[in-house]
Amino acid sequence: MSGSVVTVPVKKFEGASSTAIDDLLAVEEPLEIRIGDRPVSVTMRTPGHDFDLAAGFLFSEAIVTDVAQIQTIRYTQMQGNPRRAGNSITVDLKPGVEIDLDRLERHFYTSSSCGVCGKASIEAVESTGCSLLPHDGPIIPARVIHQLPGALRQSQAVFDRTGGLHASALFQPDGTLLAIREDVGRHNALDKLIGAEFLAGRAPLADRILLVSGRSSFELVQKTVMAGIPVLAAVGAPSTLAVELAQRFQLTLLGFVRGERFNIYSGSWRIGDGRDVPRSPPALSP
Amino acid sequence: MSGSVVTVPVKKFEGASSTAIDDLLAVEEPLEIRIGDRPVSVTMRTPGHDFDLAAGFLFSEAIVTDVAQIQTIRYTQMQGNPRRAGNSITVDLKPGVEIDLDRLERHFYTSSSCGVCGKASIEAVESTGCSLLPHDGPIIPARVIHQLPGALRQSQAVFDRTGGLHASALFQPDGTLLAIREDVGRHNALDKLIGAEFLAGRAPLADRILLVSGRSSFELVQKTVMAGIPVLAAVGAPSTLAVELAQRFQLTLLGFVRGERFNIYSGSWRIGDGRDVPRSPPALSP
Repeated sequence: MSGSVVTVPVKKFEGASSTAIDDLLAVEEPLEIRIGDRPVSVTMRTPGHDFDLAAGFLFSEAIVTDVAQIQTIRYTQMQGNPRRAGNSITVDLKPGVEIDLDRLERHFYTSSSCGVCGKASIEAVESTGCSLLPHDGPIIPARVIHQLPGALRQSQAVFDRTGGLHASALFQPDGTLLAIREDVGRHNALDKLIGAEFLAGRAPLADRILLVSGRSSFELVQKTVMAGIPVLAAVGAPSTLAVELAQRFQLTLLGFVRGERFNIYSGSWRIGDGRDVPRSPPALSP
Repeated sequence: MSGSVVTVPVKKFEGASSTAIDDLLAVEEPLEIRIGDRPVSVTMRTPGHDFDLAAGFLFSEAIVTDVAQIQTIRYTQMQGNPRRAGNSITVDLKPGVEIDLDRLERHFYTSSSCGVCGKASIEAVESTGCSLLPHDGPIIPARVIHQLPGALRQSQAVFDRTGGLHASALFQPDGTLLAIREDVGRHNALDKLIGAEFLAGRAPLADRILLVSGRSSFELVQKTVMAGIPVLAAVGAPSTLAVELAQRFQLTLLGFVRGERFNIYSGSWRIGDGRDVPRSPPALSP
């Protein structure tokens, strides 16, 4: 398996003068994910935690729904085809396990009623049987949210050195950092984080807070909802469809989580300001 | 067609106190791209410049190679299927035009010699017949590079208001801004920019500088090389595979272009410091 960071010589300009320096780069390499003999996805990722990435992808895309369905996860080896070690993962399912691989063939964002639209994208997530996020979890004080980005930065092994990696981090409701994953692809960083928990039998992650280093898109909200995480905090901005999907599944979605500030786009009843009595969750009809 | 920005009510926390404000969000909606009756791609994009996006995608993925191959570009309309207006594009090719649609079916990142690896990804770009970038273009002074991010920021209609959009901008060698496109997906912003030039008959873009607001990945370098743009400047960091692909096609790749600083990762002979006699391009053997 390749490393996740390499050193390269670069020419650094400051004003009109240049010097030769060494710079650290985040490694980007393709990873193929197979179920048995069938290739199901290729993603450009940073090597490391590849088994978690494969498991997290299959789980967060609703292809595999229970860790008990998985027999083994291994690097693919093929006789007579000198496949480069470490860039192809095979997930073998237990005998008799049936999965809906056609999900990957169909257009995920279309439905017969609406055609191609954001509403159909949300309906596609609903069609996986994904539940509304639970209401009985803890209320998170605002001061805990304020602490998250600092805890992420302190623990990032690579990000501050290359500037090229997205991070996803999982926290307890009291702000204790549990795990962090980094990748050139933000969806991969999240799949690695979710996959590790899924393989350890800890999904759904009903009492966790997720922090992502960038923006929140439809795709990141989808993976968060599939993993059952009730609070997604992002350092960057959300998109419209991220907010709509969050509201549909009653996910608490926070954006611009920086310093002592953040915005709540959905599910504000899970965030306490330390003065109010926590509000009740909304009625179930959206 | 939807707008690219909407206003939503949010709860803004500062310290322990919260207020109700309005926030601007970047719109994210799926866009299907079809060639004739055949769907070839669905991407999550910000509405606007959709025809440019479709054309730029097909060109930068080497599916369509000449604007003369295109008969019409239109929003898809289907009787009996109330497809939502504006989220599906149909590109009709001229009679007799043959294209390699199987490219989309094959795994782009694999080859029989290497299996799945970065080298195979680079070979896949070579297999499109894409040329080395030309050596007879202008030498860009470092001071021009220093000016690019400021020019981008001044011209961004949306980015600074939502914080949720990636930008791609095209410049003349003297630093004059020619065009800018924004999108929730950075590859879409670049496809929109390239597509507009392609449709106007101005590709390859041999005397242009490209600036992107984020990081540079394999995918962004691939699109830059396919468009024939000799200089890619990024505000963020490159990945290893971005640098390798840039070196292979003799693209000038700049990263961390901020203030009076930037790093050169490939093709440094195209950047002049105002004192040296510009260096000769390297010999062609990589």
